[in-house]
Amino acid sequence: MTQASICTIGDEILIGQIIDTNSSHISLALNKLGIKVTRMLSIGDDLDTIVNSLEGELLKNDIVIVTGGLGPTKDDITKNALARLSGSQSYVTDERQLEIIHNILSARGLDVLDINLAQASVPDKCEVIPNKLGTAPVMVFRFEEERFGHPAALYSLPGVPFEALGALDDILDDIRLHNNISDIYHRTIMTYGVAESALSKMIEEWEDSLPSDIHLAYLPNQLTGVRLRLSIYGGIREEEEARIEAETARLKAILGNIIYSDREDTLQGCIGRLLSGCGKTLSAAESCTGGTISELITSVPGSSGYYLGSVTSYANEIKTKVLGVPEEIIAEYGAVSRECVAAMAEGVRKLTGSDFSVATSGIAGPGGGSADKPVGLVWIGVSSDKGTETFQTIFKGDRKRNMERFAATALNYLRVKLVNELNH
Amino acid sequence: MTQASICTIGDEILIGQIIDTNSSHISLALNKLGIKVTRMLSIGDDLDTIVNSLEGELLKNDIVIVTGGLGPTKDDITKNALARLSGSQSYVTDERQLEIIHNILSARGLDVLDINLAQASVPDKCEVIPNKLGTAPVMVFRFEEERFGHPAALYSLPGVPFEALGALDDILDDIRLHNNISDIYHRTIMTYGVAESALSKMIEEWEDSLPSDIHLAYLPNQLTGVRLRLSIYGGIREEEEARIEAETARLKAILGNIIYSDREDTLQGCIGRLLSGCGKTLSAAESCTGGTISELITSVPGSSGYYLGSVTSYANEIKTKVLGVPEEIIAEYGAVSRECVAAMAEGVRKLTGSDFSVATSGIAGPGGGSADKPVGLVWIGVSSDKGTETFQTIFKGDRKRNMERFAATALNYLRVKLVNELNH
Repeated sequence: MTQASICTIGDEILIGQIIDTNSSHISLALNKLGIKVTRMLSIGDDLDTIVNSLEGELLKNDIVIVTGGLGPTKDDITKNALARLSGSQSYVTDERQLEIIHNILSARGLDVLDINLAQASVPDKCEVIPNKLGTAPVMVFRFEEERFGHPAALYSLPGVPFEALGALDDILDDIRLHNNISDIYHRTIMTYGVAESALSKMIEEWEDSLPSDIHLAYLPNQLTGVRLRLSIYGGIREEEEARIEAETARLKAILGNIIYSDREDTLQGCIGRLLSGCGKTLSAAESCTGGTISELITSVPGSSGYYLGSVTSYANEIKTKVLGVPEEIIAEYGAVSRECVAAMAEGVRKLTGSDFSVATSGIAGPGGGSADKPVGLVWIGVSSDKGTETFQTIFKGDRKRNMERFAATALNYLRVKLVNELNH
Repeated sequence: MTQASICTIGDEILIGQIIDTNSSHISLALNKLGIKVTRMLSIGDDLDTIVNSLEGELLKNDIVIVTGGLGPTKDDITKNALARLSGSQSYVTDERQLEIIHNILSARGLDVLDINLAQASVPDKCEVIPNKLGTAPVMVFRFEEERFGHPAALYSLPGVPFEALGALDDILDDIRLHNNISDIYHRTIMTYGVAESALSKMIEEWEDSLPSDIHLAYLPNQLTGVRLRLSIYGGIREEEEARIEAETARLKAILGNIIYSDREDTLQGCIGRLLSGCGKTLSAAESCTGGTISELITSVPGSSGYYLGSVTSYANEIKTKVLGVPEEIIAEYGAVSRECVAAMAEGVRKLTGSDFSVATSGIAGPGGGSADKPVGLVWIGVSSDKGTETFQTIFKGDRKRNMERFAATALNYLRVKLVNELNH
C-alpha cells in the first residue's frame, strides 16, 4: 500500500501561534485516494533540521508532502533546504509562475517587488506545478530507488491553507500518474446526543460481532456529535462498500434517530437538506450563542434559499423591543428561562415570518452564573405552527466550548423537530 | 535549553477527520515556560508504531508530551503502548481517578460502566496526576539517564481538547519542578489591512537593522491580520524584554495605526477594550457574514457589557421590515450596495439604540455573483452619531474564507472608527 508522510514547516506552528489545518485536509484527500498516511510531522525553520527530517520521512514513505516556508520573506527557507536535499546546482525561473505573480499582484493593486519575483525561482532539480492562487509555485522532487531504497517523491506546497488546498488536485493527479494505488474504504456515521461511552455500550454487541478486518473508531466532536468511522484497508472497493453498507444498516436499526447521517455531515447541512426539500424557511433568535447558530447555518452554501435571518438579542431590551418578549416574563422568570426562550423562538418566527425557528438563552461564562442558574446552563426553544418545545441542558466547559455545544444541541433539537414534522 | 516534542495519537488525525488543536495549545504553554518545542508528530493507533515513535522522540528530547488514545473504547491503545515502553509489569487502580469517574458520570446522569472504571487502571511504572475534567487520568513516566542518554519524562494526556488543556497547568508545574529552565522571549505585534509582502517592504530597513539574535517572523491570518513575531532565545528575560520593547517602539513609528496591538490580540478584543473604556455600546447588522461578526464579538468574555445585539438580515424582507432599509434602495441599487449597507448600519443603530454599529452586505459565494458584483465583493458600513462611512473591498476565496475576511475587515474599519472618535 502506498504510504505518505505530511510535513509542515514553520516556527509559528512549533511555538503554538498557528494551528496546522493543512495536514488534515491533505490527509483526507490522500486517504480518499487510497494512500495511507503514516505520520504527520511539524518542524521549525532550520535548514539542517528540514533536510534531515525530510530525508528521514523519505526513507520510510513513498510520498512526502511538505507545506510551508515558501513565503517571500527572509524567515522562509524551505526552498533552500529542498535545493540541498535534491542536490540542485542552481536556481531557474519558472516563466508560468512569473506571469501568475504579475497577474495576482496587479489585480490586488499591489506593486510587484523583487522579493515577489524571486518566488518564481526554483531549484533546477524540481518540476514546477504553477500555483494559480498564490505567488509561490508548487515544486515536485523525484528520487530514484537507489537514494532511499525505493522510488520516492516530495511535493512542496505553500503554507497558506487556501493556496495549499487549491494546489491539492494537481498534486493528486500527479500522484495517481506515478503510483499504483490500491483500495481503501471509510464510512462515517454521524450521531448526536449520546456520549461516547454510553454509545459504545449501546452498540457493544454489534461492535463485538464486526469482522476482524473492519475497524471501528469513535470520534467525538462538540459541533457534530460522536462520529463512528468504519474502515477497511486494501480490499476491492465495491466489495468493501457492500460489506460496510450491511453493517451500517444493522447499526441504524440499533441507534435510530440518534444517527443523523450515514455520510460525513454536519447538523446544519442535514437541516439545510430537510428544509430545501420542502420549501420551508427558518429563523433564529440567539442570546448566549451570540451568532454561532446563525454562522453555522449560513456556512452551508445555498442557505439563503431557506434561512431568512436571525436576531442576536444580547441585551434584554432587544429581547423585548425587537423580539417582543413580554417584559413581565423577564422580570418574573429571568432571561435564562423556559418562558423567555419560548417567547424568543415564537417572537423571531413572527418577526421574520419563517416556518421554523430556534432560540437559545443561557450562561456561557466565565461570569454570570448563580446557584440555581450555573455557568453552562442553557434553555433551547424550537418553534413552528405545530407548537413550541423547550429543553434545558447543562454543560461544563469554557466560554467558547459552551457556546459551541449550546449551538450544536439547539441545532439537533431543531433537526429532530424537522424530521418529526416534515415526515422525512 | 530544555527541548520537548509533542506527539498526538489517533487514526482520526491521520485520516484527516479531525484537526489537532492540542499540540498548538501545549506548544504555546511550553514556549512561555522557556522550553523549545522541536517537533510535533502525529501517529496512528498501532502498538508498535506508538512504542517505536515515542522511543525516537525520547532519544532526542528531554520531555515528550503525548495526547490521545486514552478513551474508554477498544480502539484506544496508548495505555498499552506506554506500559510496554516503560517496562511496566502490571496495572494498578488509581483511587483518586476512580472517585472522579464516579462523580463525573453521576453528575451527567450516566451509568458507570466497566469500561469507564477501567480508565482508572494505569501501568505500575507511572505516576498519576488526576484529571478533574474527564475520566482518563494523566500519566507521567520518568526515565533514568541510561535509557535514552539523558533523563527524560513522558506525559500522557487525554485527547479531548478540553481535558488536555485542563490538565496542562498540573503538567507545567511538574515540568518546572523537574527541569532547570532557561529564558526565552517572544513578542507579537498585531497588524491589519496590509498584505505580508507589502508590509515586509514597508519595514525592510528596520528588519535589516535588527540585531542578529532577534528573530522576526511574519504570520498572516485572515481573522487577525499579519502578526509580526520577535523572538530571542536563551538570554536574561528582563534584558530581552527591554531590547524587544525598543525595537517595537521603532516599528510603531513606521506602521502607526496599521498596528492594533503590541501583544497577542484579536480585533474583537481590541474593540471590546475601546468600548468598555468609555461605556459606549455596539450593534451589528449582518447579511453575507451570516452571524460571524456577532460570534466574534461575543467570543470575548464580558462582551455583554457593551454589545447589545445584532440582526442577521439574510432575506431582503428582514432588511426592510426589521432594519428599516427603504425598499427603493434595494430596488434601485440592490442589497449589495453602498446605499444598502449604510441604511443597514444606521437601521440597526436606531433599532438597538447603540452608539456604534457595523454592517455587511456582499457575496460570499460559491454562487450569486455577476459581472459587476462578483463573488468576493463586500460592502461594509460603520456608523455612529458622528456619521456613517462605507467601504468596498473584494476577496478571492471560498465561502468560509470570504465570510471570515469580510467579518475581519469590517471589524478593522470599526476599530479605526472607534480609535478616531473615542480619542484613544
